[in-house]
Amino acid sequence: MTSALPTPDTLEAVPSAVEAALEAFFARAIPVAADIDPQVGAAGEVLRDFVLQGGKRVRPVFAYAGWLAGLESSARDPAPGPEAPSAHDALRVAASLELVQACALIHDDIIDRSDTRRGHATVHRVFERSHLDDRWAGDAAHHGVAAAILLGDLALAWADDMVHGHRPGDATEPGESAPRALPAAVGRVWSSMRTEVLGGQYLDIVNEAGGDESVGAAYRVMRFKTAAYTVARPLELGATLASAPAPLISDLRSIGHDLGVAFQLRDDLLGVFGDPERTGKPSGDDLVAGKRTALLAVGLARAGERDPALAARLRAAIGRPLTDDEVRGARAILTDVGAVDEIETQIEGLLATALATLATADMSDPVRVELSVFAHRIAHRST
Amino acid sequence: MTSALPTPDTLEAVPSAVEAALEAFFARAIPVAADIDPQVGAAGEVLRDFVLQGGKRVRPVFAYAGWLAGLESSARDPAPGPEAPSAHDALRVAASLELVQACALIHDDIIDRSDTRRGHATVHRVFERSHLDDRWAGDAAHHGVAAAILLGDLALAWADDMVHGHRPGDATEPGESAPRALPAAVGRVWSSMRTEVLGGQYLDIVNEAGGDESVGAAYRVMRFKTAAYTVARPLELGATLASAPAPLISDLRSIGHDLGVAFQLRDDLLGVFGDPERTGKPSGDDLVAGKRTALLAVGLARAGERDPALAARLRAAIGRPLTDDEVRGARAILTDVGAVDEIETQIEGLLATALATLATADMSDPVRVELSVFAHRIAHRST
Repeated sequence: MTSALPTPDTLEAVPSAVEAALEAFFARAIPVAADIDPQVGAAGEVLRDFVLQGGKRVRPVFAYAGWLAGLESSARDPAPGPEAPSAHDALRVAASLELVQACALIHDDIIDRSDTRRGHATVHRVFERSHLDDRWAGDAAHHGVAAAILLGDLALAWADDMVHGHRPGDATEPGESAPRALPAAVGRVWSSMRTEVLGGQYLDIVNEAGGDESVGAAYRVMRFKTAAYTVARPLELGATLASAPAPLISDLRSIGHDLGVAFQLRDDLLGVFGDPERTGKPSGDDLVAGKRTALLAVGLARAGERDPALAARLRAAIGRPLTDDEVRGARAILTDVGAVDEIETQIEGLLATALATLATADMSDPVRVELSVFAHRIAHRST
Repeated sequence: MTSALPTPDTLEAVPSAVEAALEAFFARAIPVAADIDPQVGAAGEVLRDFVLQGGKRVRPVFAYAGWLAGLESSARDPAPGPEAPSAHDALRVAASLELVQACALIHDDIIDRSDTRRGHATVHRVFERSHLDDRWAGDAAHHGVAAAILLGDLALAWADDMVHGHRPGDATEPGESAPRALPAAVGRVWSSMRTEVLGGQYLDIVNEAGGDESVGAAYRVMRFKTAAYTVARPLELGATLASAPAPLISDLRSIGHDLGVAFQLRDDLLGVFGDPERTGKPSGDDLVAGKRTALLAVGLARAGERDPALAARLRAAIGRPLTDDEVRGARAILTDVGAVDEIETQIEGLLATALATLATADMSDPVRVELSVFAHRIAHRST
C-alpha cells in the first residue's frame, strides 16, 4: 500500500502526501483496533479524525526538507546502496511526527482544560459528550479525560510503529516486504526529540505552577518544547535519514533552533494580538489561558522596570476570563513598554541568522530556496 | 555499559537482571533529562523510583522465558549468524516491558483515582504533594494529574527507546557500537502488544461507564488488557527475537493466553478475598473500586439466576466505600452462589491446558520445567 503513494518533490507537496500516508496507516491500524472490539475501532476513528482534521504539518515539512537537503548535499556519498532509505521511508518518518503531535495535543488539551481546538471540540470533550449522550454511569468529565489519556497513549505508540515501519497485526500482507530498520542514528534523533518535547512540556507546567515569570524560564521552555521539537529535530531527522554529512546536520540544527524560536515568538504574538477569525482562537487567548510566554515575560520585565503598578496591571490580566476592554488594556501595556517591538525584532534577527546559515549550508539551490520561502512564511504567518 | 551486565540463565535470575538493566538505562537517560532542566531530571528520578520500587517483573520473566524456549527449540537454525540477537538484547527487550507497564500503571492510577500503589503514593499524588509542599499557585490536584500524564508519556517513549536500543542524547559513547536493529517480526509483536493493552484498557473504562456487567465483556477485556499483554505477547516477543519456529510461537501464544487469563482470574479473587497484609491493597479493594471483573460478572449472573434481590445486593456493594461487614456480605454472596468455585475451577482448567501444551512444545526440558514452575506460581499466588 504505502509504496503506491506518490512522494513529494517539493515542500509544497508535503502536507497532502503526509495526509495520504497517515490515511494509509490508519486504514491498516483501525481494523486491528476494531478486532479487539468495535468500540476500540471507533476510538481509533476519533484519533484518525483528529489527526486529519487540520494542522499545518510544519514538523513533517521540516523533516522532509531535511531529507531533501541531506540527499542533495554535495558531500554526500554519491552512490547509496540498495539498502539506503528511500523517499517513501522519508515520507513515513515525516508523517509519524503528526502522531507524536496528536499525543502532545490531546494530552495538552487535558492539561490546559481546553474545550476546543481548531474549531472542534477537544478529544476529552468528545468522549465526555458521548458519555452524556449515551447516558452512561459515573462522572462524564472524568470519563472523557480517561479516554483521552488512553487515546493519546495510542497515538504515541502508533507514532513509534509508523516511524519504524511496523504496524499492529500479525502478518505482512502478500507481496509485502519487511520494513527496513531505521538507522541507529535516526533512532537517536527520534529518541532525543520525544524526551525534549515531553521535558519541555513538563518544565512549562512546573514554571507556571511555580510562578516563574522570568525571561530565562520562558526561553528555556521554548527551546525544548518548540524549537527542538518543531523545527530542529525534524530537520535533523530527515537529514540523518539521508546520511547527510555532519557539517550539514550541524547547520540544520542551528537553522532549526533559530526558526523554531521565531515560530514560537510569532505564536506568542498571535496568541495575544491575533485575529480570532484567522487563528481560530478567541481574542487574547494566551492571556486568558495564563500561558507563560516569552512575550509576557519580556512585557512583565519591561513594565516592572518602568512602573511596578503597570506590571501588576499586566499580571492581573493573566489566567482568568477577560472582557474585550481588559484584553485591549493588556495589549496596550505590552505594546507601550516595547515588548511587542522587542519580540518582532527578535523574530527578524532569528530569521536573518537562519537565512545566513542557510545561504552557505551544503545543499542544492532548489532546496535552499524552498527552505527560505518556508522560513519566511513560518516567521511572518498570521494564522 | 549494558554489555557488562550479566545475563540470566534461569527465570529466577530474571527480575534482578532486569532491574540492573533498568538501572543502567536510567543512569544514562536521566542526565539527558537533567540537561533540559534539573526539574526534568528530578521528574526522571520519580519515574526511576517508581519503576524500581517493586513489582513481580512478570512480563520480563515471560519474555525471557520465550527467548530461552526459542533458543532451545530443536527446530531452530543451529548456527545463528554474528548478526543474531544476543542474550543482552533479550534482556533489554524484556526490561523495556517494565517501562510500558510504568506508563500503564501511572495513567491507570489517574483513571482509577488511586491514592496508593504498592504501599507508596501514586505518581499523580506525589506531584500533587510537592505542589502543596512548595506552596505553588493553582490547583494542586490538577497539577499532579498533568505532571503524571507527561511522566507516563515519557515512560512510554523511553520504553520504545529501550526496546530499540536507542537512547536520548546525541552521541554513542567511546567504544560503543550502534544497537542492532530489532527484527521486523519482533517489531510487529511489540506493536500488537501496545495496541492490545491500550485497547483493552479503553474497553474496560467503556464497559464500566456503559454498565456492561456481562461475563463476555469481562473476558474480552481480560483477553487483551491482561492475557495478551502480560503473558502471551511477552512470550512471543522473546521467542520471536530468538527466531523460534512458527509451531513453537503458536504453542507459546496458546500457553500465554491460558496462563494470562488464569493470572487475571487469580487477581480477581485476590482483589476481593486477598489478605491486605500480603497484597498491600485494602480488603475488598476491587469491590470498592467498582472493577468489572470476571468474578463479579459470574457472581452477578449466578446471583441473578437464583434471586434478583441477591444480585441487587451484590450490585449495591460495587463502586463505593464499604464497611468491613459489607465486604464480608459481598464475599458471602460470591461464595454462596458458587462464583468463587467457578473461578477456581477455571483457573485449574486453564493451568492444566497450559501445562498440557507446554508438555509437548518444542523446547529443552530445563526451560520447560522452569516455565511449569512459574505457571503454577502465577496461578496459585497469594500476592
